[in-house]
Parts: sequence; C-alpha cells; structure tokens
Amino acid sequence: MPNVLVTGAAGFIGSHVAQHCLDLGMEVVATDDLSGGFLENVPAGATWIQGDLQDAQFVGSLWTKFGPFDTVYHIAAYAAEGLSHFIRRYNYQNNLLASIHLINESVKNGVKCFVFTSSIAVYGTNQLPMTEGLTPQPEDPYGIAKYAVELDLKAAHEMFGLNYIVFRPHNVYGERQNISDKYRNVIGIFMNQVLHRRPMSIFGDGRQTRAFSYIDDVAPVIARSPLVPDALCRTFNIGADTPYTVLALAEEVARACKVKCRVVHLEARNEVEHAFADHSLLRQIFPPERDPVSLEQGLRRMAAWARARGPQQQVQYDQIEIEQNLPPSWRSR
Amino acid sequence: MPNVLVTGAAGFIGSHVAQHCLDLGMEVVATDDLSGGFLENVPAGATWIQGDLQDAQFVGSLWTKFGPFDTVYHIAAYAAEGLSHFIRRYNYQNNLLASIHLINESVKNGVKCFVFTSSIAVYGTNQLPMTEGLTPQPEDPYGIAKYAVELDLKAAHEMFGLNYIVFRPHNVYGERQNISDKYRNVIGIFMNQVLHRRPMSIFGDGRQTRAFSYIDDVAPVIARSPLVPDALCRTFNIGADTPYTVLALAEEVARACKVKCRVVHLEARNEVEHAFADHSLLRQIFPPERDPVSLEQGLRRMAAWARARGPQQQVQYDQIEIEQNLPPSWRSR
Repeated sequence: MPNVLVTGAAGFIGSHVAQHCLDLGMEVVATDDLSGGFLENVPAGATWIQGDLQDAQFVGSLWTKFGPFDTVYHIAAYAAEGLSHFIRRYNYQNNLLASIHLINESVKNGVKCFVFTSSIAVYGTNQLPMTEGLTPQPEDPYGIAKYAVELDLKAAHEMFGLNYIVFRPHNVYGERQNISDKYRNVIGIFMNQVLHRRPMSIFGDGRQTRAFSYIDDVAPVIARSPLVPDALCRTFNIGADTPYTVLALAEEVARACKVKCRVVHLEARNEVEHAFADHSLLRQIFPPERDPVSLEQGLRRMAAWARARGPQQQVQYDQIEIEQNLPPSWRSR
Repeated sequence: MPNVLVTGAAGFIGSHVAQHCLDLGMEVVATDDLSGGFLENVPAGATWIQGDLQDAQFVGSLWTKFGPFDTVYHIAAYAAEGLSHFIRRYNYQNNLLASIHLINESVKNGVKCFVFTSSIAVYGTNQLPMTEGLTPQPEDPYGIAKYAVELDLKAAHEMFGLNYIVFRPHNVYGERQNISDKYRNVIGIFMNQVLHRRPMSIFGDGRQTRAFSYIDDVAPVIARSPLVPDALCRTFNIGADTPYTVLALAEEVARACKVKCRVVHLEARNEVEHAFADHSLLRQIFPPERDPVSLEQGLRRMAAWARARGPQQQVQYDQIEIEQNLPPSWRSR
C-alpha cells in the first residue's frame, strides 16, 4: 500500500483529497496547522499530525516519524488571493517557504511524485481562455508564490529527478469549505451571509465572471493523478468550464438556499475581471467518467451542508501587514 | 539631500553603489549582515548598521531609526546561482523573503523608488540575446527568487504605486569582490587560485560563454538611476556585451596576474551554456559617457587589488540542505 502525505488535510480540498486517497487504498498521513481548517474535516482512517509547514524541523519530522512517502500531496495554502497584497510576508512564508521545505525533504527522501495544487492565479490577466501553454505572468503575491513553487518543482525535477504533477484549480466550492473566512471563497461568504440573513456582498458591479468548480469534480482527479503515468511532470488546469457572473452566482446561491436574492455592492477592488480556463489537457489525460456536477446541484449539496452547520462567526485575519488601500470591508474593527 | 538605504553595502556591488550615492550627494544608510561582505568595504561617510534582512523587525527598525528613505537600493543577495539548488530554503529566505520585508516597509513608508538588482538568471535557457521583452522562465532557485521579487515589485506598483527600477546585471567583477567564496564568482575563484599557485578550476570543457562586466560600468548607473525619470518602473539588462569562453577568461586572468595559464577541468555541472544579454534599452535611457572598461583592463585593476589583499582562505557554506548531486568540489570536507 502506498504511503502518502496530504498537507492541508483539515482544509477543504485537502480533506477531500485525503478521503479519496484512502478510498484508493493508500495509507494516508494527514497534516494541517488548523489555521483555516477544522479537525472534524480530517477523514477517519488517516494518521493525523498537527503542525506548521513553515517550520522546517516539523517538516523533517514528518519523514522521520511517518515516512518514507511515495507521494506528497501538497494542498495546504492560504488561498486568499486578493488579501495577499496586504499580507505579503505571510503569503510567501506560508505558500512558498512551506512548499520549499516539503520539496527539500521530498528530494532527500526519494518521494516518487510531488502533487501540488497551484492556482489559475498564476496566469494573471493573460489571454483567455487560460491554457497550460501560456507562460504565466502572475500579478499578485498569491499567484507569484504559487508560480515560484511550480518553477521550483521543475528545477527540482531537472536537477534531482523529483517527479511532480501540478494542478491549477479555480473557484472550487462544496461541502467542508471554510465559510467563515471573510477574505476568500465567494460562495462560502455568500452562504454564510444568507445564513445570517444578511445581503450577499459583491465587490463592484458583479459582472466579473468565474467558472465555479464543484469539489467532487476536482479532488478525485488530484488523488488518483500519481497513478496515471502520462500525468507525471505535467501541469493541468482543473475545474468547471461554464463562467458565471458573480451576480448570477448570487441568484443561484439564493435559489439553493431557498431565500430571496438580496445583494449589496461594495467598492470594486483590484481583481482579474474574467477568468476561465481551458481543460482539454485534463480531459485527455484523465478522461471523465461522468458529467460534471452542475452549479445548481453543487450549490444545493453545499447549502444543505452549510445549513446543517449553521451560521458561522466571521473570522478576520489579525496580522494585516499593509493597511493602505485595503478594501474597507476587510479592515479590522 | 535625499536619504537612501543601501542593502548589501559591505558586499561587492552594494559597496560600490553606496560610494556612488555618496558621490552624488546622497545621505547613505548602509546595511549588511556580513555573511559574504566585509566591513572594510563600507564606504566612509555612510551610516553603518549591521543586521539581517530576513528579520522583519530589523527591517522595520531601519525606518524607525534612520528613515524615511527616498530610495531603497536593494543589492543584498546570496548570488550563488549554481549552489541555490542545494540551499533552497536559505535561497528563498535570503533572496526573496528579505526583499519582501523591504517592499512591505517601502510601501508603508512611502519610498519614492525601490531599486532592485535582479539577475539575468531570471531568463533561464531563453533565446539569445536575452532582451527585456522576453518573458522570464528561470530554471534555478536563485533565478526563481529574483523573478518572484521582480513580479512582486510590479504588483506593489499596481496596488500601492511603489515605483521601482529593476536591473539584471550579469557576471560583474572587480575590486572588492568576494574571492574566498568557492561557489560563485568565477573570476574571484580564478584569482584566488592563482594567488594560491593552484590551477584554475573549470566545470566541464570551459566552452560555456559569459560576458564579464566590470563594476565601474555597472554601479554608477544603478546609483543614479532614480534620478532618471524615464527609468522608473522599467527593467534593464546591465553589463558587458562581449562574450568570452571560460577558457579564454582563464587565459586573460593569467595574463592579468602575470602567471602561466594552468587549468584543471572538473566534471560539468548543470548550468546555462551561453548567456549574453542585449543592452540597447540601457544605452537608450542611460547614454554612456565613455567606452566600457575592457576585460583586459578590468582584470588588471582587479588583479592589482587582489594581489595587495593576498591569497584568501576559501570559505565554504556549512548548511548545505541537499547533498545529492552536489558537485564533488562543493562537498564539505
């Protein structure tokens, strides 16, 4: 049985990937710092260890205590793209340096495949649709950190033969998503606002578009990717094909939550206006076994889960590094 | 009088830039961690403060004690490109995170211009000659860290209006270069080997080419760049135009040192074979006032300085993170 490490395993995508790894018969060591994840998300059957990947010694101890690992699924990140401008230091420590610690240990300990969840944030305002053939030009610290890790993995492959698979997911949503983080996950934010009987808050006119991707169309592919030889050392966009405006999304969330759609517009922030990615490479290497889950259906499942969980207290990040130009709704109170 | 901060001011390029800033009538605060620099390099007339830019608190204290600064010249780096594969963690902490600390403080404290010395390492094995219009594709952790800082500066400009000027120097040599570091600065390594009456060591056949750039053709341009309005928010290659093979370089070094040319070939390492950059943009914005210093003349000046200093004990880096595939001559003994 392959022994695998899943980072961010108490988080949203990580916990789903860990579950699918278990379902595939792997032994799973699950780690997370619980900065944005919840212990209840860690799947039963995984070996759980809490720790901070920014601490190189902790990362080393994962191997001495639980290694060797065949595969590292490095899913842990603080994926708050818009906020990353204002928490540069934390962003690079958490999203880049932590990854480097894992790459170092993976090289030293002969990991067979390093699976990394990057982001379409690496593309920046590139041409659309975003295809893997484009050279990334990330425009915010989050995308820059993700791209740096991608490049470092390529360099580690060239120098040390470390195999990698990079996924660039986008706008993933579903059960176990953190809905209490006020800086990220528009669907989670909307649902929590609905649960609080507040209007859904939209930056700008709401005509920016995103293709929202249901977790069950993403996590199983990531989990089985190291078993697909053609996937090795390749980079894949992953996620849904159909873009929605954020306004249309609000309508869909309201319908899934069975409430009237109420929105409030906040001042526009500096963000990519349209983002949609091409997924033909993914479909070629991972032929889908079924149709993707529709937004309507995915939102209904997530709404049922969120309702059962109840309204969540919004958590705010208390270590903003730069207050200048921070959207007013993000200021600490 | 503008008040400026020069990092790496006890190092090679930094000490020269600091001197030229003083010559231009600026007040200079000079900082360095002395990891690769020497106190004797810090120019008289600068305010000296030792510290580690990886420590965000130290970086903040530079402003509270000596700020505000009109310009930050961020020259500090551990520019050991080939070694960076083996010291990933240190590379990103030292070359990326330290830079981010400075960018954070520069945004918060209204620095008017952030001058950053990147490297042609950002290009990777791109087409030749390297022009600033190419999209970088760095291939080693050093180049990746430098490129990430370049991208972060662009992002900080877009979001906060921080002005920057990026220089991508290459193969700079001259007086005050560290000649005791066994991992970098081929000319320094050769001169120190000659001073020790040892043969000059060449990785591979010595047919790899580089255009070696004399410090007096580089540092004055960097120093005066913030005074040139057209330079703001642009990126410049800087350095010499004429490529030499490393074999030819060894001949030139021998001639400058007035010894017979003796070389020893080591196993080839993974490195870019040919690197030469286009400098037409630099010449357009900074029209040169005189011809560049020839390799022969530059080497003669550096050899006179090195001879006066005498042979140096080779220093080795004692915190190699990955020993695998490390060139044998780089192994610790």
